Amino acid sequence: MLIFVDTPFAERHKTTLKNGAAGDNFVFRDELPEEKEQLEALLKSDILLGNPKPAQWLEQAINLQWIQLYSTGFEYYRHIKTPAVVTNMQDYYSHPCAETAIAGILALYRKIDEFTVLKSRQQWVGHTIRPDLQVLRHKKVIILGAGNIARTIEKMLRGFDCAVTFYARRTPGAELRTPADLLAALPEADIVIACLPGTEETKGLFTPAMIAAMKHTAIFCNVGRGNLLSSEQALIDALLQQRIGGAVLDVTAEEPLPADHPLWHCPRTLLTQHSGGGSTAEYEGIIDCFLENLVAFKTGVPMKNVIRFDKGY
Amino acid sequence: MLIFVDTPFAERHKTTLKNGAAGDNFVFRDELPEEKEQLEALLKSDILLGNPKPAQWLEQAINLQWIQLYSTGFEYYRHIKTPAVVTNMQDYYSHPCAETAIAGILALYRKIDEFTVLKSRQQWVGHTIRPDLQVLRHKKVIILGAGNIARTIEKMLRGFDCAVTFYARRTPGAELRTPADLLAALPEADIVIACLPGTEETKGLFTPAMIAAMKHTAIFCNVGRGNLLSSEQALIDALLQQRIGGAVLDVTAEEPLPADHPLWHCPRTLLTQHSGGGSTAEYEGIIDCFLENLVAFKTGVPMKNVIRFDKGY
Repeated sequence: MLIFVDTPFAERHKTTLKNGAAGDNFVFRDELPEEKEQLEALLKSDILLGNPKPAQWLEQAINLQWIQLYSTGFEYYRHIKTPAVVTNMQDYYSHPCAETAIAGILALYRKIDEFTVLKSRQQWVGHTIRPDLQVLRHKKVIILGAGNIARTIEKMLRGFDCAVTFYARRTPGAELRTPADLLAALPEADIVIACLPGTEETKGLFTPAMIAAMKHTAIFCNVGRGNLLSSEQALIDALLQQRIGGAVLDVTAEEPLPADHPLWHCPRTLLTQHSGGGSTAEYEGIIDCFLENLVAFKTGVPMKNVIRFDKGY
Repeated sequence: MLIFVDTPFAERHKTTLKNGAAGDNFVFRDELPEEKEQLEALLKSDILLGNPKPAQWLEQAINLQWIQLYSTGFEYYRHIKTPAVVTNMQDYYSHPCAETAIAGILALYRKIDEFTVLKSRQQWVGHTIRPDLQVLRHKKVIILGAGNIARTIEKMLRGFDCAVTFYARRTPGAELRTPADLLAALPEADIVIACLPGTEETKGLFTPAMIAAMKHTAIFCNVGRGNLLSSEQALIDALLQQRIGGAVLDVTAEEPLPADHPLWHCPRTLLTQHSGGGSTAEYEGIIDCFLENLVAFKTGVPMKNVIRFDKGY
């Protein structure tokens, strides 16, 4: 088999891949200088590991029998037609992502960001900072989503005695089922954590009216998709005018965020730069998943995490 | 009754106090300009709310019948002899303190401190930061102490599936009972969280040999007392030479930390400036406790949180 790898893998990862699939041939995109050569290699390949850009390459690559994405989300490819089996990383990033959400919220409450700045100035403020510190304990949290990230976050929040309510259109047990339910519940929430996938239904779901309905102390956290907000500017305005308590944003409408973007200047806002899914052994885990699926693919047994671009799941 | 208040209370707190004890007279130290007047007022008082410095004042104030400290710790007064009943804030600060510990550790793992700096520079780093992110999940944690802060931290860590071991000399259920046990267990620990009170037994307990026994990735967190380390310099050296993974220090040997202290310059180190116990409603909670104890004191029913300076608990 010829396997095309479109990744930022390091040499040690490439070695692990080659050792794990000794009978197969690999071609690594980053070793081909010209885009033309890269596409030619992809067109000849049987298997793809990675998320190549532009998306259209996947439609041209008619020899592909299997595509293993290294992401969970695949909105970027949702209009692509391919006869290949497609697999993704499913819940692989859930736990790190949930940790980033909780880390960010706790950091705002305990002012870890301000202490970081104070440290860089060798400045000790003493007890004057204490009355501004908050606790996560007993906070009312609305989680948008009811998938793996959402459930992982809920489990973590139990240790802080939080009261959690889920918004999900179809998942049994979610108390909030419609945007109207959500809007009605928002004035009571201390924290809103969004971990919805990017689908047609979630795009623009969170409206300026919802931002306006939040408490002036409430934190908005988004570890799902940047297009959840129908107007990111409404969030920026609320943060700049301190009409809400703060934000933890792992995702934004535009990524990378340009240097002149107003979000950089919003107070009490943490920008984790779409790092939520990351962890030390991230690439090792992707390779493990790929090699396991490779065996399944060759032997004809069911593969893990099969998805359909056109269905969105 | 004449009640001497030695606190950084704001006007609204003073009003709450006066309204809550309408038949009593209050004298607030910060309203008396001269130290001489302050001491004179204390010597005439029946009740003290607060932690006055110098400690010797408490020995001179022989009319005091009851002292309500606003702290949990009271090492500063341990040699003071007083006939007064003494009460402290017991576990009042446990939960905020535990949150600061977890906030700091998660911040180091998810690089919230680095993202804060990047935000101030409007700098988007992209996926290059991801392989350096760690997760708290499944980490092996040693907690020094088995009191309220320790138990609260353990409860929070359950949400992250951590394996927790306690060090405590006498508490049933603590797996590590002696400094030798602790030293032997340290090479396996990913995180060490110290939340021991300041007693003769805990002073200098954590030795340079223990720091040397830690993993090069391990995090040292101290939300107990700054004198736990027999050599703070050994910790500083380990951090500067990156022989351990990082530190979250709410307490230090010297507080406030002088501007030229080397801890300000240690990498992967968060200094939360003894804010661990703090929260928005901190002073309100102290006043609630005081007023509740005031009723008990006057009616002769048992008071909450009675301690003995000489016994250390």
